[in-house]
Amino acid sequence: MDKCLLLDAGSGGRASQRLISECFVRHFANPVLATMDDAAVLDLNGPLAMSTDSYTVTPLFFPGGSIGSLAIHGTVNDVSMMGAEPRYLTCAFVLEEGLDLEILDRVVADMAHAAERSGVCIVTGDTKVVPRGACDGMFINTTGIGTLRRQPAPSGHGARPGDAVLVSGAMGDHGLTIMAAREHLSFVEGVASDSAPLNGLVAAVMEAVSEVHVLRDPTRGGLATTLNEIAQQSHVGIVLEEDRIPVHPSVAGGCSFLGLDPLYLANEGKCICIVPQEYAEAALQAMRTSEYGQEACCIGRVQDTQPGRVILRTRIGGERFLGMLEGALLPRIC
Amino acid sequence: MDKCLLLDAGSGGRASQRLISECFVRHFANPVLATMDDAAVLDLNGPLAMSTDSYTVTPLFFPGGSIGSLAIHGTVNDVSMMGAEPRYLTCAFVLEEGLDLEILDRVVADMAHAAERSGVCIVTGDTKVVPRGACDGMFINTTGIGTLRRQPAPSGHGARPGDAVLVSGAMGDHGLTIMAAREHLSFVEGVASDSAPLNGLVAAVMEAVSEVHVLRDPTRGGLATTLNEIAQQSHVGIVLEEDRIPVHPSVAGGCSFLGLDPLYLANEGKCICIVPQEYAEAALQAMRTSEYGQEACCIGRVQDTQPGRVILRTRIGGERFLGMLEGALLPRIC
Repeated sequence: MDKCLLLDAGSGGRASQRLISECFVRHFANPVLATMDDAAVLDLNGPLAMSTDSYTVTPLFFPGGSIGSLAIHGTVNDVSMMGAEPRYLTCAFVLEEGLDLEILDRVVADMAHAAERSGVCIVTGDTKVVPRGACDGMFINTTGIGTLRRQPAPSGHGARPGDAVLVSGAMGDHGLTIMAAREHLSFVEGVASDSAPLNGLVAAVMEAVSEVHVLRDPTRGGLATTLNEIAQQSHVGIVLEEDRIPVHPSVAGGCSFLGLDPLYLANEGKCICIVPQEYAEAALQAMRTSEYGQEACCIGRVQDTQPGRVILRTRIGGERFLGMLEGALLPRIC
Repeated sequence: MDKCLLLDAGSGGRASQRLISECFVRHFANPVLATMDDAAVLDLNGPLAMSTDSYTVTPLFFPGGSIGSLAIHGTVNDVSMMGAEPRYLTCAFVLEEGLDLEILDRVVADMAHAAERSGVCIVTGDTKVVPRGACDGMFINTTGIGTLRRQPAPSGHGARPGDAVLVSGAMGDHGLTIMAAREHLSFVEGVASDSAPLNGLVAAVMEAVSEVHVLRDPTRGGLATTLNEIAQQSHVGIVLEEDRIPVHPSVAGGCSFLGLDPLYLANEGKCICIVPQEYAEAALQAMRTSEYGQEACCIGRVQDTQPGRVILRTRIGGERFLGMLEGALLPRIC
C-alpha cells in the first residue's frame, strides 16, 4: 500500500479496486461483500427496521473508541431501538486526499472488530475520495437493517401515563470524552466514551418484557433532549428524579468544572427504556444481564399532566423544566 | 427559515428539529418518515438488494440534474442492477456551516421530485452539520433497498461466452457535463447529464427476458472500466465494435477537443446488459419501451478467449485492448 491516499483511489478504476481489496475487503471479509456487485443480495424477511447515520466525529480516535467503532455501534443501536435485531450494515466513506492510509486501516479494522462484536455483517459499501480541503479527514456513513421482533415496535410515540422511565447506565460519558479529547482538557481525567452495541441488551429486555413502549438512545442532545422529544411525540409529561440519574463522578466533576450539564451530553452506548410500571423491575434485571447495562436504573415516570414537558425534581426537592438543547454544545461529537 | 445554515442545526436539539420539519419532512412527506423514530419500520420480504452511495459531486447543480436528483437516481440504479425493484431509500446529509438554506431547499426538492419519479420512498435520514471548511458545501449519502425479482440475480460474475453485450444508450454524457460545468468550458456545447432512474427500463427487460446474466451501470470509470470488471469477474473476454458504441456528437466533439475517451467517462442513466444472444433483440426492444432506452443497441459479445480482457475492434478494422481506468480523470463527478 502507498502511505497516503491518492485522489485516483476514488476514480472507480484500478486504484479504487486496489484500495477496496487491500483495505475494505481484507477487514470486512464475508461472502456477500465478496461478490462485488452493485448491490448486496440479502435473504431477510420483514417487517424490518432501517436506519442511517453519518459519522463526522473529531478526533478520529478517542478514549473508548474511534470513528470506526462508533459508526458500527451507532447504527446497530438505532436499529436496536425499534426492538429489532440488527443484521446487515452498508458502509460508505468520504475520504480526503492525502489521508494517512495507516489511519484508514486502523479505522476499518475497528469497524470490522465492532461489527463482529455486534454480530452484524458489512455487506456493501462505497468510497469517494475528495481533494485536499474538501473534507476534514474522513466521514463514514453506515446504514443498517434488521428484523423486527414484534409489532407494534417500541416508538417515541408509545409512552403512557404511569410508565416507568429507565436508563441502561450513566449519562454524558461520550460527549465529555470527545470534548476533552478535542480541546486537550487535561483536567478532565478518567473519562472514556461509552460507545457500545446495545443489541444484546435490547434483546434481553424484549425477551423479558412483553410490553416495551419506548426505546431510544440519547445521543446528540443527551437525555434531556431525547426525553423532550418523547414527551412531545407521546403527548405526555415526564418527571425525573435528579438524584436517581446515574452520572459517573469523573463526568460530574468535569462537567461542573466546565459549566456543562451531563443531561445534555451525548451518549453512544446507553438507552432509555419506557415500560409499564409493573414491568420496570424485570426490564432492569434484563438490562443488567448485559455488560453494558450494569448501572441500569429507574430515573422517573410518565404522567398525564404537563404534556410535552420534562420536569426535573432536584436533589433539594424543587422542580424545574428540563428543556431541549437550544444551541450547539459541540459540533462533530458523532 | 434563516438564510444560512448554523452549526446548531446539527446539534440534535431544537434547531435540528426545525431544519428537519421545515425542509426534509416538508419535501419528503410520507407516513414512515413522519414517525421520526430512530429507524424506519418497513414491511418488505426478501430476497432483497441493498446498496449505498455517497454523493460529493461539484458543482451542486449542472445541466441535466443536481446532487439531489443524482443521489436518488444513482442508488435507485444500483439496486435496479440486481434486477430488483427499488422500494425505500435512506438519506443522510453532511452539511457545511454557512450553507445557503435556499440551496439546500432546492437540492432537497430535487430529491423529493426524483424519488417520486422513481417510485421510491425516503423513509429515514440523518443530518450532520460540520464547521466551515470541514466539508465543501454538502455531501449526501443514500442507501436503497428493494425486492429481487428472481434468483440468481444478474451479477458481474454471470457473463457467458456467446452472450450479447448491450447498452441502453449513449456513453459519456454525465462525465463530460460535469467536467464542462466545473471548468467552465464554454466550447463544450449541448451536453447534459444523463442522470435518470433505470428501474422502469430494468423492469421491462426482466419481464421480457428470462435470462439476464449481467446488469451494470457504467458510472465512475465509464463503460471501459465496468466491462473490464465484468470480464475479470466472469473470467471471459469481451469484444466491442467501436462503430456500434453510441456517443452523442456533442460528447464526441467535446472529448476530441479535450483528448478524452468517452468510454472512460461516467454515465448516470445508462446500463450495460449482457444476455444470451437469442434474447438480445427482445432485451433491446424492452429497453426501447423506456424513455431512457431509446438509443439502446448491441455493442459487442462475450468470448471464451482472452479472459479478463476487453478488446475494441476499431472503426478501421484493427483491434486494441481497452484497459481499466488507471488514474483519476476527474474527482467528484458523482
